[in-house]
This record gives sequence, structure tokens and C-alpha cells, in this order.
Amino acid sequence: MKFFVRMTFYLSLSVFLVCYPLGASDKERQNSDDSKMVDAIFDNVLTRGDTYKLLDHLCNQIGTRLSGSDGAAKAVDWSKQVMEGYGFDRVFLQDVMVPHWVRGSEALAVAKNVPDGEDVNLSVIAIGGSVATPVNGLTAEIIEVQSLDDVARLGESKVKGKIVFYNRPFEQRNIRTFESYSGAVDQRVRGASQAAKFGAVAIVIRSVTSAFDDVPHTGTLVYADSIARIPAAALGVQSADKLTRILHHQGKVDLFLKMDCKWLPDAPSYNVVGELRGSEFPDEIIVVGGHLDSWDVGQGAHDDGAGSMQSIIALRTLQSVGYHPKHTIRAVLFMNEENGLRGGKKYAELAVKNGEKYIAAMESDAGGFTPRGFGVTAPDSVVAKIQSWQPYFDKNIISYIKLGGGGADVGPLHRVFGTPVIGFIPDSQRYFDVHHSENDRFSAVNQRELELGTGAIAALIYFIDKYEL
Amino acid sequence: MKFFVRMTFYLSLSVFLVCYPLGASDKERQNSDDSKMVDAIFDNVLTRGDTYKLLDHLCNQIGTRLSGSDGAAKAVDWSKQVMEGYGFDRVFLQDVMVPHWVRGSEALAVAKNVPDGEDVNLSVIAIGGSVATPVNGLTAEIIEVQSLDDVARLGESKVKGKIVFYNRPFEQRNIRTFESYSGAVDQRVRGASQAAKFGAVAIVIRSVTSAFDDVPHTGTLVYADSIARIPAAALGVQSADKLTRILHHQGKVDLFLKMDCKWLPDAPSYNVVGELRGSEFPDEIIVVGGHLDSWDVGQGAHDDGAGSMQSIIALRTLQSVGYHPKHTIRAVLFMNEENGLRGGKKYAELAVKNGEKYIAAMESDAGGFTPRGFGVTAPDSVVAKIQSWQPYFDKNIISYIKLGGGGADVGPLHRVFGTPVIGFIPDSQRYFDVHHSENDRFSAVNQRELELGTGAIAALIYFIDKYEL
Repeated sequence: MKFFVRMTFYLSLSVFLVCYPLGASDKERQNSDDSKMVDAIFDNVLTRGDTYKLLDHLCNQIGTRLSGSDGAAKAVDWSKQVMEGYGFDRVFLQDVMVPHWVRGSEALAVAKNVPDGEDVNLSVIAIGGSVATPVNGLTAEIIEVQSLDDVARLGESKVKGKIVFYNRPFEQRNIRTFESYSGAVDQRVRGASQAAKFGAVAIVIRSVTSAFDDVPHTGTLVYADSIARIPAAALGVQSADKLTRILHHQGKVDLFLKMDCKWLPDAPSYNVVGELRGSEFPDEIIVVGGHLDSWDVGQGAHDDGAGSMQSIIALRTLQSVGYHPKHTIRAVLFMNEENGLRGGKKYAELAVKNGEKYIAAMESDAGGFTPRGFGVTAPDSVVAKIQSWQPYFDKNIISYIKLGGGGADVGPLHRVFGTPVIGFIPDSQRYFDVHHSENDRFSAVNQRELELGTGAIAALIYFIDKYEL
Repeated sequence: MKFFVRMTFYLSLSVFLVCYPLGASDKERQNSDDSKMVDAIFDNVLTRGDTYKLLDHLCNQIGTRLSGSDGAAKAVDWSKQVMEGYGFDRVFLQDVMVPHWVRGSEALAVAKNVPDGEDVNLSVIAIGGSVATPVNGLTAEIIEVQSLDDVARLGESKVKGKIVFYNRPFEQRNIRTFESYSGAVDQRVRGASQAAKFGAVAIVIRSVTSAFDDVPHTGTLVYADSIARIPAAALGVQSADKLTRILHHQGKVDLFLKMDCKWLPDAPSYNVVGELRGSEFPDEIIVVGGHLDSWDVGQGAHDDGAGSMQSIIALRTLQSVGYHPKHTIRAVLFMNEENGLRGGKKYAELAVKNGEKYIAAMESDAGGFTPRGFGVTAPDSVVAKIQSWQPYFDKNIISYIKLGGGGADVGPLHRVFGTPVIGFIPDSQRYFDVHHSENDRFSAVNQRELELGTGAIAALIYFIDKYEL
């Protein structure tokens, strides 16, 4: 009965009707082979998948992996060894020079002289890429705003010499939390330069998170050229609430801020690439990737240990079920997605230089949660072809394949070649609870959810390899 | 393009095409009103929903709620007050006599005289409803089996005087974990009587769980009439693995088992019912329910604090968005789902006695996880009608509405009246990690996932009330 209802709904929208040029017997045979392969892939990840085991090692034995750090270097060595151990046809590194920022000591933020003359310690973290405060910290009056526009409206007379406190919350009403993130993250990315333009001495922001706890969330900022670089920090949500309450209660608050983060010279690092060589079209490549670097808090489990380990195991799974790809399939562990995208850019640059040809590039960088769908940026005919494979997926795994999506690291490939890019879309409800914070740990990852993501990715690679786009 | 692809797929299956008897303008208006209401409902739960807040109280202030316990009694009083506080039109209790089983001290299971003569303590919990061991425990040789049939095959000569160790694992390969649960739970429910029939003195089972940790999972058993009642306990998965390794290594293991659980006389308890009275058809009722009782470990957060609090807040949400139902809508917090279903049976018995009329009965008893769909047990035309509302739901929330489903507590209503029953289906990947164990705690519930479930339920009630079935 489900088909009946759907049809009436779609018909009412007056869409066109076209049939596939396949005879019934072709279609049945195809369905059967493809269904068996999809079943074998999901069986494999759920019963013998190593994504969770690898992620355990990456998180608990190696830890955080900010570009230029020891952790990043260890992760490069280890993930190369892992792919070599799996017997992939070729495993190699691509040189990438990466930015190298270090957090230094724990940041301090203290609201001074609040009622009863007591100081109030706030939960705070330096925003990635921020400059330090003076060695002994700085103290200034805060001015609370809801947006970058607010700062311009207030102007230099109100902003100069102050610490701008961006407090626009993560919008809980969006069902898709990435929309809420996009709607608030300008405060973190561009808030410092906007405030500096009007003479502010520092900024603090409300952490961009769906959680209601007091764990602060970092992430990158971008300083505009030719504007003074001022320190930038993120408060835990409860601390942001506390600060605004104090401000509204007493009309004026001085904030003490101290951070000793700093920039070091660019450092050598690597993208790590493993490939299964195509039997028929070895020079035509399908990429699946995640980023190996992470922020320097928590363990970078969902962001993006999950996606990078899923990329390795997607290839491993195709190997395990005995599938021999026609095209070359590459797992790419990109370096430096978080604060520079140097790995993604370098990958595309080398692809151009080497005259490589790409069928598609897929990315998993939205967490290791239960799968929901795929988002595809490609011509309509390509999107339609990918959507035609959706019926092979259990509706509890892949519920939709939509137009639009991809990923930061595969973006450059799309820009230089027009390569179709595909973003794996896991459920987004828990992602921004942990994203870029101490709470992004292996313990926040569920084994079955993670492995099902690997299965969905491996199955889609199978279809792309078998039928092309 | 999504519609185009879908159409071609469905057409290839040669389904019938029928149009709704609504003019375009009617349909547009309807769509618009309905879409606005659905948006308002999801807005409300995501920004002001109280499901999480209530569940926090239920779990952290009241705790576990096994039938007959103080916790269950407190939960009845408190949830009644909550619904009265929300100003529901009527809040009342239904008397239910419930079974009263108590766990007593912590169970002990010790593998005796393993290599080197050392004892090995195993992680164990009494299965709900089990009789006690003798006061000083019992010791017997174990015999490992994979199924109830194995016990029959081995027969009295191999089983008599022994402790049967059911060790068939939870099947990880199923995408829908409820299938794995159904596939293994006979060991827990009927394993004791099957073993006793052949002279066993006790059973231990491998916990029925998707987790790989060592936390044991309880749940109910059913003793068959006229067969000796023997003690039954569940081992943590790691303990079960340990026990089987020892057994295979040395060929023979004695197990010491000690439990002092017991049965008390049936106790008085209650279903808690709150209703919004229908403006046009007050005598026609739509039920939405969960069960207020829980097992006596953890906090009964997902099972089924989540569903019972969602039921309350589904009504509260309709109130908050200003919707005045045409039919009477009842939140029913059933008592004793876990070990007797007395509340569900009593509710249907009273419905018959009072000559009540039911439009539909919905249940949320599969955890407070991110929503996936609904399952409907009803005639095809009713299922089709409910499926026609699916397009109003974001595909990240309700991805399908399928034939089949409902819930234990609304089952009796379906049986006596043929009432259409609907089961809310959240994502099932994490449920059996925590189900019936110490890990079923409030901290394992995500606020947005829980509230989205409430939203999905409230929205479906709205459609049923507005358009009937």
C-alpha cells in the first residue's frame, strides 16, 4: 500500500513519467546481484567491521591530531601502516605544509567585581587560530551583541576598548542541526575582525553548540587582512548565560581574559592515501575520504576520526566481500581540514598536475552517527542515477538521497574538475553537542551506528564503480 | 529530480494510479494549514518541549519503577500531578493489581576450580521473576547450549542436575535490532522451564544485548505451569565469553549461583490517564501511551520513561500550539508492561466495560532515540491514509510509515475492538546496548532526539484527530 499512497502524492504534483530502458529479466537479475552485494556489505560491517576498532586506537592510543602536532604525525604513520597491513594495492603519502597553531596553557575568563565584589570564573577555551592576550591577561568592559551587524550598528563609540561578547544562540528549532551551526558560526569565524574593526580589544563568543552544558567549543577563526588581530575565546553555554545575567543585573561587567596560544611556522605533514586498483579502468578514480586532523581537545572521534576510519574500512569491506572494482578506489585521509584545508587543496592540485581522472568523490565528515542519507552535488542526471540505487538501502539506513552536499576536503576536486561530490549524511542531532569540544570522545560513538555508516559508504561506492555516473 | 526517479522506480513495479478527490485549491490550502501545524509542533518541542525535563525528574528524582515498588508508586503520584499541573481536562487513575517481585541482594555467579584452582567471579543479574537459589546458593556443573532445542536434543541424561548455560548471541547482522532481540530472547523467557523439564537445577543465559561490555541485562521470564521453577540469571556478555572459554579449555566447569529474589503478594497500583476532551466527538478516543513501570536497574530512561513522558508532552504540545482536538486525546501511562502487562489488559477491560470508542492507539516503547518511522497495524485503507501524511514530515525524522507494529500495552485494545494501533519507531541501534540494564539511564538520552520523538507523535495525533482514519 505504500506505493499506492506515494503515487497519488507524486501524481498530484504532476511530475513526468519515464521508464527505464531495461527489460524485466535484466532488472530482476540486476536487483538480485546488487541486493546480495549490499547485504554482504552490511553483514560484513556489522559482524566483522573494523571501523570501531580502528577509531578506538586512533582516539585512545593516539588522541588529538591538530595540524602540525605530534598526534597528527603519529596518526599519519599509523593509518599508513593500517592500510598497508590490509594489503591495499598502493598506499602513499602526499606532502602538505600545514599551519601550526598551539593552544598553550588553559585559557582563563573571569567576570570581575560582580555583585558582592566577587569574581566569577567562566568556562572558556581559545578559539583556534587566536592570538594570545598580553602575558598577564587583559581586562576590559564587555559589550554584549547578537550579531556582527550589531557591532557595526554600535560603532566605534560603543565598542572601542571593550571586549565584544557575541551571544547569539544556536537555533534549537532547526531539525537539521547543520543549519543551526551555519546560522551561528559567523560569530566565531569573523567575529574577531569585525569587533577589531571598531576598536574592540578582544572577543568572547557563546559556544556554537546544541548542548546546554558548560563545556566550551573551539573551532577556527579567520582574521581579515589589515585589521588588528585580537584574542578570541569561546564560553561554555552556561557561562555565557551567567555572563549575560550578571551584565543585565548590574549594567556593566569587566572581563579578565588570559590566553597564551601562539602561531608557529608552517610544518610538514601529509595526506594519507590507500587504493584498490581498478581492474578495467585503473586510471579512473573514485575517492572516499575524511580528515585525519582534529581539534586539540577531546579525541576528534566524531570529527573526523569516524569519517577517516570509515573511508579505510569502506575499501577494506569491498576487499572482504570479494568485490574487485573496475575503477581505482581511493581512501584519502586529508590533513588540515580544521584550520586551513591545505590537504584538500593539495590533493586537487596534485590531481591536476598528474592528469588524473575522477568519477566521484565522497566525504564523511558529519560524525559517526546512524546513517540518514547522502547529499550529491552533480548534474541532475547524475543525482537521478544515484537516487535510483536508494531502493537497495534499508529505509532505516539511507532514507533519502538529495541534491546538494559534499564536503570541505572534496570541494577542491569539484571546483577543478567538476567531479560529482557526495556527502554522507548521518543523523545530526548529537553532533553539535560534542563537536570541537572535550566531549568529542570515542565513548560518544556507538559501534553499530559507526559501522552502518561504513556500510552505506561502501555500498554506494560499489554502485558507482559498477554502473559509473 | 527526486520525484522523477521515484516515479520511474514505482512505475516499473506496475502499481495502480489513483488521484485524491480533492481540487488543487483545497489541497493547497490543506497542505498549507497542515504544514504550518507540523512546523509549529516541531518548533514547540525543540525550543520549549518538556519531555527531557520530565524524564530527568522521573529518572533522577524517582528512579526505577518496577511494579509494586515505591518508585512505581511515586511515579504514579508525580505523573498525575504533572498532568494536572498542565491543566489537562481530566486526569485520573485506573486501579490495577500488579505482580510484585523483588530482586533482593545482588546475585552471585562464580566459576569454580578453573585452571590454577582459582574461582572466577562473573557479572550476573537475576532474570526478573526468577525464584531464589537455596539460601547458601547452589553449585552444579554447567552445560552450554545454543538454543532451547539443544536442551531437548541433549535430553535428561545430559541435562539432569546441571546448570544450563544458554549462550546464543544477539545477532549483530540485523539492521533492525528488534529482530536480533526477538531472535535471542526465548532463552531468557522460556529457557528456565525448558531446562527444568529435563532436570536442570538452574539456568544462566548470555545477556540479550547488542553491547560487548560486561553489564548484565535482566528482563522477564515465564515459568510454564506444572514444571519445576528453577533459578534463572543473565551473565554479562564478557562473562559469558569467559565462561565458555573456561569450559572449552578444561571440558568441565562447576558454577556457584546465589540469588535471594522473591515473589510477594500482588500489589495495588495504577494506570495514569490524562486527557484533552474532544470538542466535537468527546466520546471518541485517541490513545497515546508508554509504560510507567521499568525494570529495577538503571533508571528505566529509554524503557520506557521516554515513551511515557513523550505521551504526556505530546498532549501538552497540542495544547501549547493552540490546537483544540475534535476527539478526546488520552495520554495513558500504563503500569506493569515489563512483567505482566496488567495495565494494558486492564485498560482494554475498562474500555469494554465503559462502552468506549477508539479511533486509534499509539505507543512509544522502543526508546527515546532519533525518530525513524511509524508501524501501523490496521486495515490497508487505514495504513494508506496514515502514509498519505508522511510527506509532511521531514525525512530526517519520519522516513517511512510501514504496515505492522503497535505496542504491548495497546495490543489488548486492538484485540478487543480492532482499534488501529501504531508503534512509534525510533532508531534502534543503541536500544539494546542499554535495555533492561544499569546503563538505561537519563545520561544515555539525548534531548533533541527525545523531543523530536514527541514532535513526531504529536503531529501524527494531530492528523488522526483532524482527518480520522
